[in-house]
Amino acid sequence: MAYELFYWPGIQGRGEFVRLALEEAEATYVDVGREPAKSGGGVRALMAMLEGEARPRLPFAPPFLRDGDVVVSHVANILSYLGPKLGLAPDDEASRVFAHGLQLTITDLVSEVHDTHHPIASALYYEDQRNEAKARAAAFLGHRLPKYLGYFERVLNDNPAGPTHAVGDDLTTVDLSLFQVWAGLAYAFPRAMGGADKRYPALAALAASVATRPNVAAYLASKRRIPFNESGIFRHYPELDQGPAKTGRKRS
Amino acid sequence: MAYELFYWPGIQGRGEFVRLALEEAEATYVDVGREPAKSGGGVRALMAMLEGEARPRLPFAPPFLRDGDVVVSHVANILSYLGPKLGLAPDDEASRVFAHGLQLTITDLVSEVHDTHHPIASALYYEDQRNEAKARAAAFLGHRLPKYLGYFERVLNDNPAGPTHAVGDDLTTVDLSLFQVWAGLAYAFPRAMGGADKRYPALAALAASVATRPNVAAYLASKRRIPFNESGIFRHYPELDQGPAKTGRKRS
Repeated sequence: MAYELFYWPGIQGRGEFVRLALEEAEATYVDVGREPAKSGGGVRALMAMLEGEARPRLPFAPPFLRDGDVVVSHVANILSYLGPKLGLAPDDEASRVFAHGLQLTITDLVSEVHDTHHPIASALYYEDQRNEAKARAAAFLGHRLPKYLGYFERVLNDNPAGPTHAVGDDLTTVDLSLFQVWAGLAYAFPRAMGGADKRYPALAALAASVATRPNVAAYLASKRRIPFNESGIFRHYPELDQGPAKTGRKRS
Repeated sequence: MAYELFYWPGIQGRGEFVRLALEEAEATYVDVGREPAKSGGGVRALMAMLEGEARPRLPFAPPFLRDGDVVVSHVANILSYLGPKLGLAPDDEASRVFAHGLQLTITDLVSEVHDTHHPIASALYYEDQRNEAKARAAAFLGHRLPKYLGYFERVLNDNPAGPTHAVGDDLTTVDLSLFQVWAGLAYAFPRAMGGADKRYPALAALAASVATRPNVAAYLASKRRIPFNESGIFRHYPELDQGPAKTGRKRS
């Protein structure tokens, strides 16, 4: 039976990390939120699940995945569930646990990217929190982003199997997700990311190598890949794409 | 061999969710950050791990757990790793996956609680972002917190085995974590949480029942339980503990 991915239509958002894994593995799946309402898809299908159809295993928010009787919510959980089934997870427990930790660090990074444009409230317009967004984006680009990217660069270089993959000597969902983060950051913050391929060469090489994998390349060229836009996680607001922040007083 | 928990000394913080599981299960563990430096503990031991001792499986940040050769980072990942070993996880895959999703929703809630006092930058003092903190706390207490607590209340009531536990008919790490969230919210936001036991009776009952479990009660009464304070995640700043926010313009 096909996997059913439930996510908002019209944006890559957090759903994209799941789409990339399904596409790379050529898994059969339905992107339910993007299906026509008349065939049981669309936002109404999402809402029906959230409002009770998924009981007793109700998700808190999209994305979530249905696989027969199993409902899996949160990107990292979905990828941890799908990884072994799609051949995108390490074999041994210690490596799987490490890969899941990396995936959760990516989750945190993505959440911080979101908060650069919504530092006060998701329920308010960006325009209503633009000044706070500028402050948060400056702190993010000045302190947090270099910490995250430096960390992943180091993890790649520390990999005993070589820097081609994050964990072990084969592709995992972590590699696919790092590609997505790299692409999203380049879209949202072209100025801050200028020269990033020099500062983080292993990450840049990983992103380039993922993008040219046949299944990923075919997906990226297809209509299934929604373009980045200013409703998703990675938004290009030029006023937020500043140089590194001035260092403020330290913690906390 | 004893589990080694690596976390900042002096705060409950994110480490507390791990401590509660270890304490409930009477597991043998070392809280490395709180051990004297002369016996190889303290912040220096944490930093040594982060700076390279944990390679090639470097964590991004505390808390992380070492179990022999395995290094596990992120609270939800640690609890997913420990759960089956400590008898605090459901038996079947569908329930385990659901429990992990709940744990990740708790992670998100905890992160939003943190951002009520640090909406702009973790690297800056609270006092330097107090006005933004007031706005973010108002949105959190007005919109997000009721959504989270309402969700967990519903999950408890939807449990086919009854509302005593979040998943199945036995204690899991999710129950322990929900207790911690409930206790932390009551400490940080006594005004906003006033009457919460009436609005969320199943959650309140769960928290009370966890608190009176013999091992948890003994732990809470011990010196190992660090009191809540204004360096942790749950901080009591009276100026942030307001009534529900005025509803602003909607998304996004």
